[in-house]
Amino acid sequence: MVKIQDVAKDSGCSISTVSRVLNNPDLVTPDTRERVLKSIEKLGYYPNEKAKSLSSKKQNVSLGLLIPDITTFYFGELYRGISRTAKNSGIDLILRDLDDEGPLQEQILDGMVSLKKHGVSGIIISSRVMTEEYDEVLNRLRIPIVLALSEHKKLKFSSFKTDDIKASFDAISYLVSRGHKHIGMVTSSPTEDKLVGEPRYQGFKNAIDFYRLPFKAKHVAVGNNFRYEGGYSAMTQLLETRETFPFSAVFCATDEMAFGAMRSLHDHNLKVPDDVSIIGFDNLSISNMITPKLTTVSQSFEKIGVESVNHLIKILEEPKMQMETGVFYMPHQIVERESVRTI
Amino acid sequence: MVKIQDVAKDSGCSISTVSRVLNNPDLVTPDTRERVLKSIEKLGYYPNEKAKSLSSKKQNVSLGLLIPDITTFYFGELYRGISRTAKNSGIDLILRDLDDEGPLQEQILDGMVSLKKHGVSGIIISSRVMTEEYDEVLNRLRIPIVLALSEHKKLKFSSFKTDDIKASFDAISYLVSRGHKHIGMVTSSPTEDKLVGEPRYQGFKNAIDFYRLPFKAKHVAVGNNFRYEGGYSAMTQLLETRETFPFSAVFCATDEMAFGAMRSLHDHNLKVPDDVSIIGFDNLSISNMITPKLTTVSQSFEKIGVESVNHLIKILEEPKMQMETGVFYMPHQIVERESVRTI
Repeated sequence: MVKIQDVAKDSGCSISTVSRVLNNPDLVTPDTRERVLKSIEKLGYYPNEKAKSLSSKKQNVSLGLLIPDITTFYFGELYRGISRTAKNSGIDLILRDLDDEGPLQEQILDGMVSLKKHGVSGIIISSRVMTEEYDEVLNRLRIPIVLALSEHKKLKFSSFKTDDIKASFDAISYLVSRGHKHIGMVTSSPTEDKLVGEPRYQGFKNAIDFYRLPFKAKHVAVGNNFRYEGGYSAMTQLLETRETFPFSAVFCATDEMAFGAMRSLHDHNLKVPDDVSIIGFDNLSISNMITPKLTTVSQSFEKIGVESVNHLIKILEEPKMQMETGVFYMPHQIVERESVRTI
Repeated sequence: MVKIQDVAKDSGCSISTVSRVLNNPDLVTPDTRERVLKSIEKLGYYPNEKAKSLSSKKQNVSLGLLIPDITTFYFGELYRGISRTAKNSGIDLILRDLDDEGPLQEQILDGMVSLKKHGVSGIIISSRVMTEEYDEVLNRLRIPIVLALSEHKKLKFSSFKTDDIKASFDAISYLVSRGHKHIGMVTSSPTEDKLVGEPRYQGFKNAIDFYRLPFKAKHVAVGNNFRYEGGYSAMTQLLETRETFPFSAVFCATDEMAFGAMRSLHDHNLKVPDDVSIIGFDNLSISNMITPKLTTVSQSFEKIGVESVNHLIKILEEPKMQMETGVFYMPHQIVERESVRTI
């Protein structure tokens, strides 16, 4: 069978040019168009019918992506998985981010309405705020939704994420295996943030109980967000307990919190990992660029992106099939670097 | 005059809900719709006609954004400026990123064709590769284009960016003002990369000549990219010259290269800034989270995003007006932190 590659070779053009002659001939110069069409006739090339029907079915398909804050460092990695998978299926992505203006809930609603107006066939939502309050609007929008790094309490939508409880437990197990017995935690609102704060605290606490390590409420220091500033202030609080709680290691709820925590230790003339060991959660690309390189729990951001898109495509291809909804956990792992020492 | 706020207050709903009743009534419950419509009638509210005509004119306007790699750390900041400005004008954004597969030029062409097919009214391109080879396709696309952080040699399109030559000169002036006389540079391909490599090297060299500082070709070490790995390998090369060139400060072409350079110094048991001072270029948010905090040249990423969108909107509103094209330089500044010492 004659392939598009053969036409490209025979006409001395690239595959993309041949593809443009077939799909957008007005974007190609008359000379080139002529040359390609001649090769097509000469070789007897027919575009792969199966591929063609699939691609023409998807030609006008676009997916919406609703994200809370594009400046979070993991976004690029999540996006890469989503983007590559969509591109491979010929699907366009329309991005909508939320900013700090106005109530978050209104912004999410407006974002979904705007995406729907733009004709997207499905929406991937990566937001920490997915409560039942949206259910009515979501029902009215009648559009397939998949959650990435998020979760719907009533499991109405499928979600792809990390098993935060298990991954946090594993982080503490790793510290225990390195000889640590006095372990603190730096986090933000374990009670208010149901999506990240609560399960990561739960995994920490489960492990502390499991290994029968000393525990008091003040061993968990709480900053006002999951970012650098929150990590800095939480570690500064935790250091105040050090006389009665001689911690040798601290589990930080996010890598960015770990950066802030390490700076607080630096400002208190304490060295990582000599004086205090630090383990993070995320495995941001930057975590491998700082000194000491951060030991952390790696989330499969790219895979989460890939699976979210594949799931939406399945729903779109088989709209009548009753899809199983649920939480799909993507693998995590401990990445050993330089911020934890063995004692 | 009755405002939308008054309707919201009277009906006990949010402004967004009132707006939805007016624009997407099927997304609101019958009860709420009823209540809002009653308030509208009672108060005699008429949507602002001027605002309405502007917004309805823009209602279906979307802009395309073509970027080379979403994982570059500055992207989030550039995007924030673009996104906020677009949102304030009721314009949707369609993002298209390029990946590593296939020749870059083909990807850019395909990206532009795909955005055009999606009905965007204009495209913002933020790519290091904008050569005249695209001119013919761009002409055929007949769509307004603005360049962000990029430049077209023949000035066919307006571009918004930093004055790299001037900013690099300023970085060296800063080092000189702190007493440094032996200054090296860590960069990537000053001859091959016309957009960043060449002007930043030019600014460095201009300053070296201006201040009559010692210079040899080997004082400029070249890594294979502008990222962490490139910075690490370039600094490692530069250190080999140290016996004959006792440099006290190094200008790194990007912040990410500076991270790599600092790690190479660390691996050679040299301290920043005690043994070697480092100045970067970009002012990434992460540069303020590492220790030592990076002294660097700040680019106005957010402002570049804002101005790019505003410029495109102007072109769309006055399509017949002959717009002045050219390079618009956005302000830069030296951000003093901890990585440069005074000698």
